Amino acid sequence: EFKTRTSPEKSLLKYLNSLQTLNFLSRGGCSLLTLTTVKRVAVVLAGCGVYDGSEIHEASAVLVHLSRGGASVNMFAPNVDQMHVINHLAGQPSEEKRNVLVESARLARGNIQDLSKLSVKDHDAVIFPGGFGAAKNLCTWAVQGKDCSVNDEVKAALQAFHGEGKPIGLCCISPVLAAKVFPGCEVTPPGGARCFAGTAAAINQLGCKHVSKSVSESHVDEKNKLVTTCAFMCNAPIHEIFDGIGAMVKDVLKLA
Amino acid sequence: EFKTRTSPEKSLLKYLNSLQTLNFLSRGGCSLLTLTTVKRVAVVLAGCGVYDGSEIHEASAVLVHLSRGGASVNMFAPNVDQMHVINHLAGQPSEEKRNVLVESARLARGNIQDLSKLSVKDHDAVIFPGGFGAAKNLCTWAVQGKDCSVNDEVKAALQAFHGEGKPIGLCCISPVLAAKVFPGCEVTPPGGARCFAGTAAAINQLGCKHVSKSVSESHVDEKNKLVTTCAFMCNAPIHEIFDGIGAMVKDVLKLA
Repeated sequence: EFKTRTSPEKSLLKYLNSLQTLNFLSRGGCSLLTLTTVKRVAVVLAGCGVYDGSEIHEASAVLVHLSRGGASVNMFAPNVDQMHVINHLAGQPSEEKRNVLVESARLARGNIQDLSKLSVKDHDAVIFPGGFGAAKNLCTWAVQGKDCSVNDEVKAALQAFHGEGKPIGLCCISPVLAAKVFPGCEVTPPGGARCFAGTAAAINQLGCKHVSKSVSESHVDEKNKLVTTCAFMCNAPIHEIFDGIGAMVKDVLKLA
Repeated sequence: EFKTRTSPEKSLLKYLNSLQTLNFLSRGGCSLLTLTTVKRVAVVLAGCGVYDGSEIHEASAVLVHLSRGGASVNMFAPNVDQMHVINHLAGQPSEEKRNVLVESARLARGNIQDLSKLSVKDHDAVIFPGGFGAAKNLCTWAVQGKDCSVNDEVKAALQAFHGEGKPIGLCCISPVLAAKVFPGCEVTPPGGARCFAGTAAAINQLGCKHVSKSVSESHVDEKNKLVTTCAFMCNAPIHEIFDGIGAMVKDVLKLA
């Protein structure tokens, strides 16, 4: 019952999109009606838990803000083993094996697809929440830094959205994906000295620029349609991180 | 680094509380200054994932709203095996074993304690997010309904907060914990026909009253200082569930 409960909403959204139906939305505090369509956003997850998967609160904030923004959402994750499993209580690797898609399904309440199924033409934007999983399971940045390889499906998705001029949202550590795939791009700094020492320098070496922002702000690289925010890389209370991700989501929807 | 990053804030909050320092907070839209102290709230988790643990987005929303409300938070979970592990992609039990405290640490970014360490005198309120874990790992409601047993530490915590007249917040399925421990109490209905058929009837049989509310509302049982909201039990978009949990958290902090 949990798994299918959003289906009627999704069907309706699909129907609206297929008709290219125009929605009249009255925005708070504005006396004019705005003409818009439902934005279809793909969210790509990397597991479930900050140390070996997607950062849970960042992923949740992305979904809350997309929902409030009236977007329809599909979630995806690569069907691969996690780099490793971290016991989050001990802060140490354990002997277990877990699958990125299966663990990401916890965040998606079961409603998630294999990343190989992601069709760029069915979506107006894509968002990658942060967490170490983005640097461990979506690419090998955590181990190899700027010389990392990016998961083939992740790379293909990034290049396809970029090629179509569709916006890409990233937060926390996940901007390293953009730095690796789009030389010369601008991103918020993923941690600098706080996490993965040398990350900022490595981003520079890839020919990219890191732009400092406060926790509540997002940075838009207009040329590449990249929207980034530092999220948990900033040492801030969780509600400010939530708000910063809201700024990122808003900018992504604006560009979509 | 992630694990210790909130320590300075926590130390400061502890210091402020130990001095009973008064905080002058100016509330938005109000020209008066309000005299208040930092509220110390315990959040009790039941794993990480809707089908076998705490509902992730409910737990995250609780933390965001507590942070915005200026509360200091400590997280706890029982150090016991989960009833079982559900593969959230397949929607089926798997053969794995996982520990409730270890998995809850994913939601807490490692900053969590064994529930046996929860000291009621160090907290002004307690909140139990929902998810099937509340009915599988904190009590046996998922299997035995009204004849369930409640985990000893969970029961002791509920009785101690109740005995001290400190508020208890619950959402989604977790109000069954209150229905079992506090005969005669009032709670929002945990699902009715949508989940665990017969739950509403079972709550009645325990001598409790279930009060229907919309997703954005919470119900306050003033006599027992119980604050409940239906959250994912309502078929609503995630941002409305987020807001309903905000209403619950606000009422808990008001009573604390």
